[in-house]
Amino acid sequence: MTKGDETRAAILDVAINIASTKGFAGLTIGTLAESTDMSKSGLFAHFKSKEQLELQTLERARERFVDVVVRPSLSASRGEKRVRALLENWLRWADDALSGGCLFIGAAAELDDQPGALRDLLVRNEQDWLDVIANVAATAVAEGDFGADTDVEQFAYDVHGVTLAYHHHSRLMRDPRAAERAESAFESLLASVRA
Amino acid sequence: MTKGDETRAAILDVAINIASTKGFAGLTIGTLAESTDMSKSGLFAHFKSKEQLELQTLERARERFVDVVVRPSLSASRGEKRVRALLENWLRWADDALSGGCLFIGAAAELDDQPGALRDLLVRNEQDWLDVIANVAATAVAEGDFGADTDVEQFAYDVHGVTLAYHHHSRLMRDPRAAERAESAFESLLASVRA
Repeated sequence: MTKGDETRAAILDVAINIASTKGFAGLTIGTLAESTDMSKSGLFAHFKSKEQLELQTLERARERFVDVVVRPSLSASRGEKRVRALLENWLRWADDALSGGCLFIGAAAELDDQPGALRDLLVRNEQDWLDVIANVAATAVAEGDFGADTDVEQFAYDVHGVTLAYHHHSRLMRDPRAAERAESAFESLLASVRA
Repeated sequence: MTKGDETRAAILDVAINIASTKGFAGLTIGTLAESTDMSKSGLFAHFKSKEQLELQTLERARERFVDVVVRPSLSASRGEKRVRALLENWLRWADDALSGGCLFIGAAAELDDQPGALRDLLVRNEQDWLDVIANVAATAVAEGDFGADTDVEQFAYDVHGVTLAYHHHSRLMRDPRAAERAESAFESLLASVRA
């Protein structure tokens, strides 16, 4: 990494925290300048436009998600263990990675009616995540942990539902049993596909 | 209803469509004036403040939700049929009631980090909805459709996850199989609690 790359990554780490808390509507060159103690003109020099700032912020969130959730899960043993690692690491992501919870869930609600490059990038990210879940579930089928007739795309949809419910219950409802509920839902899901 | 009440309800029906599409951040006396062809001063006379407008908009969405989802479901036979009616009517709500999908799901992501009266009202609404699901599931236990050991709060959490995943897949991902996936997830859930 060059010095310029490092500076950019540090700025974007501030940006993803703003976007996770206040949405992309709350992320502007102005709010970023306040949070980073940089000048607006300095930030413009880095990002050129609000749209570029948004796209690079989402891209940075994706890198962080890969670091926190995807890569560590893929180092778990193939099969059900790896499927379990996905949920465990996702819960860490939702709880600890960003100050406002999962940026992608917030962005999904914010952007679903806003056509454009940012929405398109978000959709690609979400599809990649669903594909990761389905592919890891497919290794569990291949290892004989899950039944041969498991619909791995349905499984990905169902795991996604568990994570969305967890985010809602933990962040909006502040339900102290949110994690317990998510784990119970996940165990039922695993039981339903196990060989 | 007085003429004033009718006018207010008509204005609020415009407001809930704006909030469902653009979030509460996009709902202002100004945007509402544009969409209703009323003057800002006329709207101020109705609502007094942006906060009152927001609270009454959420309250109006709650009334509509009761009309579209809760009341028609309670007219179905007690037991599993009534549980099924809840999901069917919720899908109609998400697809057809408002131009931007379920206002509550958008608001949850927008408001989870914004303490205040609007967030408090949303949390009460969401808790009421979870209670409706749990109570209807309890009638299915009482009727002998669901097992006596069914954890109806967990069931409510799980149904909630199905609806959140549906909203995400239909509105953000524009997945043509979103409804089929939701129904499949719901059938698995029912199968897991059936007596």
